[in-house]
Amino acid sequence: MSSNRPSWAPPERLLLGPGPSAVPARVLQALAAPTLGHLDPAYLAIMDETRRLMRQVFATENELTLAVSGTGSAGMEACLCNLIEPGDEAIVCVNGVFGGRMREVAERYGATVHAVEAEWGRAIDPDAIRRTLQEHPRTKLIGIVHAETSTGVQQPMDEVARLAQEHGALLVVDCVTSLGGVPVPTDEWKADAVYSGTQKCLSCPPGLAPVTFSKRAAEAIRSRRTKVISWYLDVSLLMAYWGSDRVYHHTAPINMTYALREALLMVVEEGLERRFARHQLNHLALRAGLEALGLTYIPDRSLPTLNAVSVPDGIDDAVIRKRLLLEYDIEIGAGLGPFKGRAWRVGLMGHSSSRRSVTTFLAALGTLLRELGWRGGSGDPLDAAGAVYAGHEKSS
Amino acid sequence: MSSNRPSWAPPERLLLGPGPSAVPARVLQALAAPTLGHLDPAYLAIMDETRRLMRQVFATENELTLAVSGTGSAGMEACLCNLIEPGDEAIVCVNGVFGGRMREVAERYGATVHAVEAEWGRAIDPDAIRRTLQEHPRTKLIGIVHAETSTGVQQPMDEVARLAQEHGALLVVDCVTSLGGVPVPTDEWKADAVYSGTQKCLSCPPGLAPVTFSKRAAEAIRSRRTKVISWYLDVSLLMAYWGSDRVYHHTAPINMTYALREALLMVVEEGLERRFARHQLNHLALRAGLEALGLTYIPDRSLPTLNAVSVPDGIDDAVIRKRLLLEYDIEIGAGLGPFKGRAWRVGLMGHSSSRRSVTTFLAALGTLLRELGWRGGSGDPLDAAGAVYAGHEKSS
Repeated sequence: MSSNRPSWAPPERLLLGPGPSAVPARVLQALAAPTLGHLDPAYLAIMDETRRLMRQVFATENELTLAVSGTGSAGMEACLCNLIEPGDEAIVCVNGVFGGRMREVAERYGATVHAVEAEWGRAIDPDAIRRTLQEHPRTKLIGIVHAETSTGVQQPMDEVARLAQEHGALLVVDCVTSLGGVPVPTDEWKADAVYSGTQKCLSCPPGLAPVTFSKRAAEAIRSRRTKVISWYLDVSLLMAYWGSDRVYHHTAPINMTYALREALLMVVEEGLERRFARHQLNHLALRAGLEALGLTYIPDRSLPTLNAVSVPDGIDDAVIRKRLLLEYDIEIGAGLGPFKGRAWRVGLMGHSSSRRSVTTFLAALGTLLRELGWRGGSGDPLDAAGAVYAGHEKSS
Repeated sequence: MSSNRPSWAPPERLLLGPGPSAVPARVLQALAAPTLGHLDPAYLAIMDETRRLMRQVFATENELTLAVSGTGSAGMEACLCNLIEPGDEAIVCVNGVFGGRMREVAERYGATVHAVEAEWGRAIDPDAIRRTLQEHPRTKLIGIVHAETSTGVQQPMDEVARLAQEHGALLVVDCVTSLGGVPVPTDEWKADAVYSGTQKCLSCPPGLAPVTFSKRAAEAIRSRRTKVISWYLDVSLLMAYWGSDRVYHHTAPINMTYALREALLMVVEEGLERRFARHQLNHLALRAGLEALGLTYIPDRSLPTLNAVSVPDGIDDAVIRKRLLLEYDIEIGAGLGPFKGRAWRVGLMGHSSSRRSVTTFLAALGTLLRELGWRGGSGDPLDAAGAVYAGHEKSS
């Protein structure tokens, strides 16, 4: 007879990378509740509640709101493949890995893509979108990344949203690293498709992708001339199950839905505004600490949820990351693409965005940098971070 | 301060439907272990072990073996979309919902599909495949369902496998409801792509799809003229992460991988042969009990893992299912398509395949049928099932 206990347990890391973030015990416990059938009335009620909670967090009234049974990238593909038909023209904004991925996915589904590029670490210039719209008046869709996980850039959205409206183009927004950590006002933006993942600022394990489509997007899907190429991600079929018809499509990831519901509930219990303020405060404290160590931020408009900083001269990126992981059980992210070896990506997302995370990380990084001979910086990182928290307490 | 406990717990159902099946406590606990980063060396080791275990359960040496980050239907789509290019000819065998789904998916990815059909509840006739191959000599791929979840038919594979070999066609096999409950000898079949789900005979929650590709399939993928349309399911990109390169593709469903590994380990600990024998024994006991109640099986070749029986005349299908669920916490499945209202689908998969399940279900169903006035059958279902178990004990 084999034991009833799992044969293995993972090390307990402090997850400060680009995602997954730390998952609260309450969400892990929800994940491990007994599995229900995907047509059990008790499960259908949980789906409905999860949709309601997703709408609150996306700040939308969109009927067409659901969780795709895959990770954030499946959410991206679901948004694009349902809205694009072969031959459509699309503008995709590329200033990092995820903009590049959007372009790639749109092209695979047959779009002619006009890329609007910006340097890695810089936001997209709305004027460049305007010019591209003038050059390509048949543009049906604009894809843009709100929170570029590869560079830490937060894209200002107001002007982009206005351009999409003026032009009558569908606006698709990647909010994988912003939803639940930074305001994502879907309806205010009049965004037509917004997608995210569970493992970033929602602090649920990876495996589902919350997505929401506007009425205009739903209408565009209804009036397609061709079938969506992906059967698995065909939103019309998915909605026949998520909606009141309950037509079987595929077996939903039951336990992951329990976890997502619990994670969303924690977001709503905290309150969106308080949650955004918490992310902002911990970001500012981290930033003060890193700057005291002499480190510099790469983007001019940093996300509070993802801090991309330059690896200082003479310091080996990989050595620091490895020692943080093995000696301190702290995970941070490496740079990708042009930032490989040159950037660290420090996530403060969801449950990982806490004073404890900031303090633990600054203490460990400061110690390691000193050990490796780094003499940059003008102050004590913990004092600098502490001053930010103290200032906040005084003002509130 | 909110509580640390989940806000909700599901009812504890006995899952005897077409999946999900009951998940052992040990697997649920593995699922709830702390989340790791997707590039953490501790997680990469778990991925490697999961691949090794998948190979054992698929009875294959295939290098190209991995878990797709979606449910069984994503596994189907992954197999078809990587092997099919627009304009390819494919034979798809259709004798239920899942054969029909294969046809639909293949067509969406641009295949010209020649369907080989059989009546619902009957197996596919290899001669019909042979004739279709003669009519369509350019056929590149044959798709067939080994375990048709919608009808309970187990497809004999030897002759089909031989035909695919003779013709040089790629053989794609749906083993969603057989893997881990019925022999799936991938290498013996010389199958080129086999996919399954986690929530059937592996008794892991739904959310991942184990898939395996032969060398010949890998070669077909390498020599494609066109990109795979789905980026999310592009096996070449997935293997760059699952293989030794560890190139980031998407954030893997970390906790689901823990659970799959644990579930596979339980399969291997029990031993495949013993596990198949257990499924067969419980199936025979259930069958004896149902026949004693006067119920008849629909397929002539029933899967041990899924029992499709006719709803007796004068009995309301939905009333029985609803009362089983609400009064006994037992889930069974309804009929689909032509079997709607006419069939019950009783799954005995993985952890749900037990003497306790058989006894509990027969007792509840017998009681309900008597209450509703059913007077069919010639014996006591529990005695009939008990006799099968007693006979087995004597012979072993």
